[in-house]
Amino acid sequence: MERPSGIITFLTDFGTRDAYVSAMKGVALSVLPEANLVDISHDIPPQDVMQAAFVLRESAAWFPTGTVHVCVVDPGVGTERAAIAIRSQDQYFVGPDNGIFSLVLGRADHEAVVLDNPDFWRSADLSTTFHGRDVFAPAAAHLAAGRSLDQLGSPLDKLRPLHWALPIHDDQGIRGWVVHVDRFGNCITNITRDVFEAGRLDRRFKCYAGTVIVDQLRATYGSVEAGDPVLLFNSSGLLEIAVSRGNGAELYGLRTGSPINVVFLDGQAG
Amino acid sequence: MERPSGIITFLTDFGTRDAYVSAMKGVALSVLPEANLVDISHDIPPQDVMQAAFVLRESAAWFPTGTVHVCVVDPGVGTERAAIAIRSQDQYFVGPDNGIFSLVLGRADHEAVVLDNPDFWRSADLSTTFHGRDVFAPAAAHLAAGRSLDQLGSPLDKLRPLHWALPIHDDQGIRGWVVHVDRFGNCITNITRDVFEAGRLDRRFKCYAGTVIVDQLRATYGSVEAGDPVLLFNSSGLLEIAVSRGNGAELYGLRTGSPINVVFLDGQAG
Amino acid sequence: MERPSGIITFLTDFGTRDAYVSAMKGVALSVLPEANLVDISHDIPPQDVMQAAFVLRESAAWFPTGTVHVCVVDPGVGTERAAIAIRSQDQYFVGPDNGIFSLVLGRADHEAVVLDNPDFWRSADLSTTFHGRDVFAPAAAHLAAGRSLDQLGSPLDKLRPLHWALPIHDDQGIRGWVVHVDRFGNCITNITRDVFEAGRLDRRFKCYAGTVIVDQLRATYGSVEAGDPVLLFNSSGLLEIAVSRGNGAELYGLRTGSPINVVFLDGQAG
Repeated sequence: MERPSGIITFLTDFGTRDAYVSAMKGVALSVLPEANLVDISHDIPPQDVMQAAFVLRESAAWFPTGTVHVCVVDPGVGTERAAIAIRSQDQYFVGPDNGIFSLVLGRADHEAVVLDNPDFWRSADLSTTFHGRDVFAPAAAHLAAGRSLDQLGSPLDKLRPLHWALPIHDDQGIRGWVVHVDRFGNCITNITRDVFEAGRLDRRFKCYAGTVIVDQLRATYGSVEAGDPVLLFNSSGLLEIAVSRGNGAELYGLRTGSPINVVFLDGQAG
Repeated sequence: MERPSGIITFLTDFGTRDAYVSAMKGVALSVLPEANLVDISHDIPPQDVMQAAFVLRESAAWFPTGTVHVCVVDPGVGTERAAIAIRSQDQYFVGPDNGIFSLVLGRADHEAVVLDNPDFWRSADLSTTFHGRDVFAPAAAHLAAGRSLDQLGSPLDKLRPLHWALPIHDDQGIRGWVVHVDRFGNCITNITRDVFEAGRLDRRFKCYAGTVIVDQLRATYGSVEAGDPVLLFNSSGLLEIAVSRGNGAELYGLRTGSPINVVFLDGQAG
Repeated sequence: MERPSGIITFLTDFGTRDAYVSAMKGVALSVLPEANLVDISHDIPPQDVMQAAFVLRESAAWFPTGTVHVCVVDPGVGTERAAIAIRSQDQYFVGPDNGIFSLVLGRADHEAVVLDNPDFWRSADLSTTFHGRDVFAPAAAHLAAGRSLDQLGSPLDKLRPLHWALPIHDDQGIRGWVVHVDRFGNCITNITRDVFEAGRLDRRFKCYAGTVIVDQLRATYGSVEAGDPVLLFNSSGLLEIAVSRGNGAELYGLRTGSPINVVFLDGQAG
C-alpha cells in the first residue's frame, strides 16, 4: 500500500441528467467511503475523445500528488479496447485505452496496467455495457486508498495514441487550428508558446483567425478596449484568440477546427 | 445513535443556476460539517416525479450502507403531502411522500416516519416554500450523523404509490414503453429481463420500436456495425434500444412514452 | 491559525464544460487535501456580477461558521481591480473587488484585505489571465485551513459598491423589478417584505406584473388552483410572482429587469 490521497476526479461525456455518474461515485464510495470526489466535467460532447483529452490536460496538473483521475469517454466500450490504469507524474489515470490520456501524459514517464484482475471489479458478473461503474470506478477507489498499480492487473507496454495533430510550422509561419472554444467564446489553438517563439525570433507577425487579423500579443484580456481582439498565451501556454468583454468565436466566425495562420514578417517587432 | 456513514446524495429538479441546491447543502453541512455530499442530478425535468424515481432507482443501489438520499421533486410542496424519511436496504431516503421512492423500494422491507419533530427542522419558523432546505436537508444530515429514524418523527404505515405502470404481457408478447431517454439517445424501457425471458421461453421474437424492428438481443453496443440498431438489457436489467455510435431516439423517432412491442414467434431462437 | 472549517464553496460564470473550475479545485486541494468542496453554481450568465451577488446572498447564510466562499465573476480580470478576501458574519469571501459581495455583506461588519502577499499565490510566476486558479483558490484554501485573514495581504478600507438599485417607494406604492427568474419560471423581485409591509400598512393593494394583476399574498404555491398566479414572500423575504404548477415568467411575459408595480389602495385588507 502506498500513501493514499483519497482524491478522485471524474471526467465523462455522461451529462448530469442520468444516473451514470452517480452510480460510478457510489461504487467508489463503497470501496473508500471517505474519498474526496471532484467533477472535472460531464459535459464533454458525446464520444469526443479529443475534447476530453484536452480538458484533462488543462486540469490534471493542478491536483495534488496521488490524485486519481477517472476518464470515461469511450466510444469503443464493450469492444476489444483495453481498460487501463496509468501512473505518471505522481498521479493516476483510469479509463479506456483510446488515446484519452495522450495529452496529459505528453512525453512524461509512465507505467500502465490492463485492469484484468477481477478481484478489483465491482463484481465478477461484469456488465458489458458499463465499465465506468464496474471496472474504472472501483479501480480508481482502490488506487485512491493507496493500493499499488501492479495489483490491479497486468503490465501494458504501449498505449494507443490519440490522433492529435500538431501545427505545421517553418521559418515563414505556423498553420494551426482552434482546438477548443470555451463558454466565453475564447478560442484556444494548438499553437504552443514554444513553437511560436522559436519560429518568430522576435520578428513582427500577423495572425489570421477567421475574420480578424491580429499583430500584437497581449498579456491580459483587459489590455485592449472592450470589443477589440486580443491575442495571448493562456494560462496553459496555448495561443488564444478572444475579444475583450465579448464572444470571440461568434464575432470572428471561429469554431473547433477553424484554421489559424501565423505569418512572420521581416523586421524586428516594434 | 447508529453507525454514521456521512454520505448524503441529492436528487432534485432545482437545476444548477439558482441557490436552492447550495442552501440545502449549507444546512446539511451546518449539522454535519464533514458530510460527504454527492449530486445524483439536479436536472430532473421540473416536477417530473417519475423521472426522479427512475434515476434514483438506477443510482441508489451502488452506494454504501448508511448512505442518505435526499430527493426533492415536489409538485405538492406547501400542501398536505407529508415530508418523510425511510429506512430500507440499509440506506435512508428523505423527501416528499409522493411516490418518488416507489421504484427504489420495490417490494423491499422498509420503515418510514413523518418528519414532524420540529427539533430537527432548520428552525421553528418553518418556511412554507422550501422544505428541501428547512426539513429534508437537516433530517438527512442527522441520519448521516448516525441518528436513528424514529427520533425524527412519527411512524408512517403506508407510503403513497407512484402511478408507474408495468408492461402488459402474455404468452404472445409484451407491450411496454420507453421510460427514459439518456443523453446519448439510448432508449430505456419498462420491460425487465425477468418479464422478457419468462414470456419468451427461448422463442424467436420481434421488437417493434418506433421505425425499427429488432429481432436479436446483443451483449454490447459494439456488437453491431456503427449505425445499426442494438437491443440489449442494460446494466440495470431493463430492455434498452440504442444505435451503435449514434442517437437511437432521433434515428428511430422514440421518446419517453413511446410504445415498445415485443412479439414472440413460434420456433426456437437460432 | 484560527479554527479551520475545511469547507470551500465555488460560485463562477465558468460553466461546466471547461477545465477552469477543476483547476481551481485542484489548487485548493493541493493546499488542503481534505477540504470539503461545494459548488454553488457555475452557470451564472457570463460576466453578470449582479446575478452572482444575488445567488451568493441566497446561499451563504445557510453554510456553517468558517465556510469560505470563492466567487469569480470577473469582467475586469487582468485590469486594476483588486483581488480581495473578506471576513464577515463568521464566514470568508474571496474574489474580485467589483461589488460581487455587496448583497451578502449588506450592512454587516466586515474586514477586508487585498491579496497582495505572493507567498499565498499558486506561484510567483503569476498568470495574468486566471486569478481564480492562481490567487483566489489558494487564498480560500489557506483560510479554510485556519490561516487568518491578515496574513494574506494588506488591509483594505473600502469595498467597491455594486450598483444594485433598490425599489422606489412612497405611501402610494412601490416600483421595483424582477431581479431573478429561477428555472421554474418563478420571478423574484427586489421588493423586500420590510419595504412592502411598511408601505402597505394593512391596506388593500394591487401588484402589476407583466400581463397579470394580483391582489392577495399567499403563504405557499399550493394555496391557489393550478394555473393561477401566486404572490408570496419567498424563503429569503423577497416578493415573488409565480404560477401554481406552471412557468410564471413565460405566462406573464416577465424576465430579469421587468418592472413590478405595487399600488396601495384605500381601505383595509379584507
